[in-house]
Amino acid sequence: MTVGIVGAGQLGRMLALAGYPLGLDFLFLDPAAAPPAAQLAPVLKNAFTDAAALADLASRCEVVTIDWENVSIAALTKLRRQTRISPPPAAIATAQDRVSEKRLFEKLGIATTRWRAVGTRGQLDAAVRDIGLPGVLKTRRMGYDGKGQSVLRTPADLERAWAEHGSVPLLYEELVPFDLEVSVIGVRGRRGECQVYPLNHNLHAAGILRLTRSPFGNARLNRLARRHVQAVMEHFGYVGVLAIEFFVRRGRLIANEMAPRVHNSGHWTIEGAVTSQFENHLRAILGLPLGDTRARGHSAMINLIGTMPARAGLLRHAGVHLHDYAKEPRPGRKLGHLTVVEATAERCERRARALLAELAPEIHIP
Amino acid sequence: MTVGIVGAGQLGRMLALAGYPLGLDFLFLDPAAAPPAAQLAPVLKNAFTDAAALADLASRCEVVTIDWENVSIAALTKLRRQTRISPPPAAIATAQDRVSEKRLFEKLGIATTRWRAVGTRGQLDAAVRDIGLPGVLKTRRMGYDGKGQSVLRTPADLERAWAEHGSVPLLYEELVPFDLEVSVIGVRGRRGECQVYPLNHNLHAAGILRLTRSPFGNARLNRLARRHVQAVMEHFGYVGVLAIEFFVRRGRLIANEMAPRVHNSGHWTIEGAVTSQFENHLRAILGLPLGDTRARGHSAMINLIGTMPARAGLLRHAGVHLHDYAKEPRPGRKLGHLTVVEATAERCERRARALLAELAPEIHIP
Repeated sequence: MTVGIVGAGQLGRMLALAGYPLGLDFLFLDPAAAPPAAQLAPVLKNAFTDAAALADLASRCEVVTIDWENVSIAALTKLRRQTRISPPPAAIATAQDRVSEKRLFEKLGIATTRWRAVGTRGQLDAAVRDIGLPGVLKTRRMGYDGKGQSVLRTPADLERAWAEHGSVPLLYEELVPFDLEVSVIGVRGRRGECQVYPLNHNLHAAGILRLTRSPFGNARLNRLARRHVQAVMEHFGYVGVLAIEFFVRRGRLIANEMAPRVHNSGHWTIEGAVTSQFENHLRAILGLPLGDTRARGHSAMINLIGTMPARAGLLRHAGVHLHDYAKEPRPGRKLGHLTVVEATAERCERRARALLAELAPEIHIP
Repeated sequence: MTVGIVGAGQLGRMLALAGYPLGLDFLFLDPAAAPPAAQLAPVLKNAFTDAAALADLASRCEVVTIDWENVSIAALTKLRRQTRISPPPAAIATAQDRVSEKRLFEKLGIATTRWRAVGTRGQLDAAVRDIGLPGVLKTRRMGYDGKGQSVLRTPADLERAWAEHGSVPLLYEELVPFDLEVSVIGVRGRRGECQVYPLNHNLHAAGILRLTRSPFGNARLNRLARRHVQAVMEHFGYVGVLAIEFFVRRGRLIANEMAPRVHNSGHWTIEGAVTSQFENHLRAILGLPLGDTRARGHSAMINLIGTMPARAGLLRHAGVHLHDYAKEPRPGRKLGHLTVVEATAERCERRARALLAELAPEIHIP
């Protein structure tokens, strides 16, 4: 049974690593010369929008899924005549456009930031007038890891931000003075069955996730997040793993964005949950029973960004699980991650702080 | 950093699955058309004894290891001029020959069965006279999963067993009326550092391992097994994972055989130990720090033999971890395994019994 994956990055690589033990085969589509998944599965080396390559992929796979949400929806939708596409293209389309995403959150009663669509310089002025400063100007499309966005703090910032981003459709939203950031990861199967992982507590720096700790939060917050991710999955008749990132302010969840795929904040589930997000995504899209999403102890996941520390140094730390994505180092690039699992939240927190202090002393954990 | 593996079976496959997250590359040597590891790494399709292919493998790898101990020691030893070979060929040579193995156990003060080397029909008669009946006649070489051996219970059995096995060097040993079977798995690094996993309690049927539960046994038995595996590893200046199987009789350990590689009774360590035997073997042979061998809860591993049950049926059981080796079904063939990890030994035992009753009702757990 072959799973086709559009995008052969680290998420695709970890999907394949989770899927081989289930007896699955993999085929990727990716234009890169040596993407992370190429080491362990065949890759069709073509553009994500190449209709012939996509058709070839679809013809050779039981199901096609994605490792990267900025695929061509038109191309993906056409494949539905040939094979099953999971998650549904409508969910991917919504996640591609910040305006559609905000509208969805509002429609489903999920609190989100105040926002305005911005297409002209005049609309930017009006948006800043309505929402105030500070705020964040973001491209509607193709933003990830803090790319394509600027914080506006004073009226003088508008001109610079407009010059930088004004050529594409934008969204302006309030800058939420949040207490902390969390994410929830759910999975929905073909028959509508759902499982949700415990809440993740995330720490970003310069727009990039650096540290996740899970499980996090009280029962109320977990229930609320679970309800939200289930509502989004129900809305789309979703199949696969879906993540939503929230700001937490005074005990309230404010939706920031969603990702229609396995998510960086769920990497801890490989060692830290009964069934990993990668295995559960595969189970879901293949119509197999979903696996248990409960945590095994308390996990911390630290991203390795920009440069890869020496392997021997990392593995010297007892119980550290290394995940090297086999990528070329480049500033700001996610090259791998570490996970530690401990019996108590306190011990996990201590270890996370010690590891981060060693690996990224510039990052401050509040 | 590329690891060369002679043999691309399920052990090699699981080594690769454990090694990719460490950022390693793999290259296999195997004559089979589609061996289990071929799905996820390149394979040189040549005989295990092909000198040119072995030299090619050695020239392309930092270290060469094995997934199958019945390799040509002469061929392997020659490679030492080109690259590092782990474990040491001397240990593999000893494990290939039951007589050398028995002599080693005796030399190191490890209790083993009473035995005699048998090369002629006359020596068989003499061996049965000395040791008595019942006993087991085994080929000195190439035995695995109960192959190449016969139990002799009455004098009439000698003729039949001699006819079946007499063409190759043999060993006759007492049939130990054991209470149960256990195995110990140790790992030794390049600087002589050692880690040992908790004892495994194994159940065989028709010579094939069916069920392993771990951790098992009291502190005394674990200490004894640990001492034995450390003694064997020290003797060879061993690097990598080594397993020893024992009979337990009245609280004593009686060594049965050793395996100079990752071992079927250690498959539970993938989910059930902090660091799996596969990752630890790779860490050892690459000179990396060894990982923690402690158990995470109580694990049971069930082998899937001969036919592969439907994936959906297996995954319906909460917390079942499936490992499908992507092999063609054939009677008596190991096609995969399942692992469950539970918080208590009692719960683990209940689940193991329920799963085995469903999957292999013919197997009786004492």
